[in-house]
Amino acid sequence: MAANFYADFQRVATAFIEAYYKLFQDDRAQIHTLYHPDYAFLTFEGEQFSGRDQILGKYNTLPFQNVAVAVTKVDSQPTVDGGILIMVIGQLKADADPPHSFSQLFHLKPTVEGGWVIANDVFRLALHNF
Amino acid sequence: MAANFYADFQRVATAFIEAYYKLFQDDRAQIHTLYHPDYAFLTFEGEQFSGRDQILGKYNTLPFQNVAVAVTKVDSQPTVDGGILIMVIGQLKADADPPHSFSQLFHLKPTVEGGWVIANDVFRLALHNF
Repeated sequence: MAANFYADFQRVATAFIEAYYKLFQDDRAQIHTLYHPDYAFLTFEGEQFSGRDQILGKYNTLPFQNVAVAVTKVDSQPTVDGGILIMVIGQLKADADPPHSFSQLFHLKPTVEGGWVIANDVFRLALHNF
Repeated sequence: MAANFYADFQRVATAFIEAYYKLFQDDRAQIHTLYHPDYAFLTFEGEQFSGRDQILGKYNTLPFQNVAVAVTKVDSQPTVDGGILIMVIGQLKADADPPHSFSQLFHLKPTVEGGWVIANDVFRLALHNF
């Protein structure tokens, strides 16, 4: 398999992740525009949301004003269905809270215009039991 | 959307995760049988593998004898293509090493026999820069 096979997906993933966390930090009220207009799932700390309206509602009620995200690793893979899977590990700092580690999964699907939108999104803080 | 819509996926995800980590801990040489025979991707700490042979090769050369996994959270979602996405956060302890937190993404696809196999797998230890 050609070396650029993986590189192409990683390039899309890296650009997408940069755009997503920029909106997440700077303009959360617009972040729903990154989601698929017809089908999109968000699981945020175990809570399920589907569709842009529910997803926007969740982002709009996150209980912090300021958030800073530092991405540690971005891994990506193609799916057999023409999508891209991304797993991010990183750290975020919300308002005056201490930094927390998190993991986030994205499943991107292509748009007819040649872009990519989020079909699936799972977010978890890395809080372990012991 | 019916409440059992999510529950059904979560049931498959939970059973799959239990089977996967049982093999990972007890019989790693058999774990490739959980992957799709024709297309499967594994990204392990940034290294890319595709196909059962490469994936088995990676599992067989992991540099530890004994490993114990404690799963903290399992989140799952359906994809628009009939698959299931799973994100796991957990902790693992290999040989005499201290425990490490990890994140793992799985994309399962249905088999003609009614089971599920791994099409995509991304594994990362949660080691942050600061």
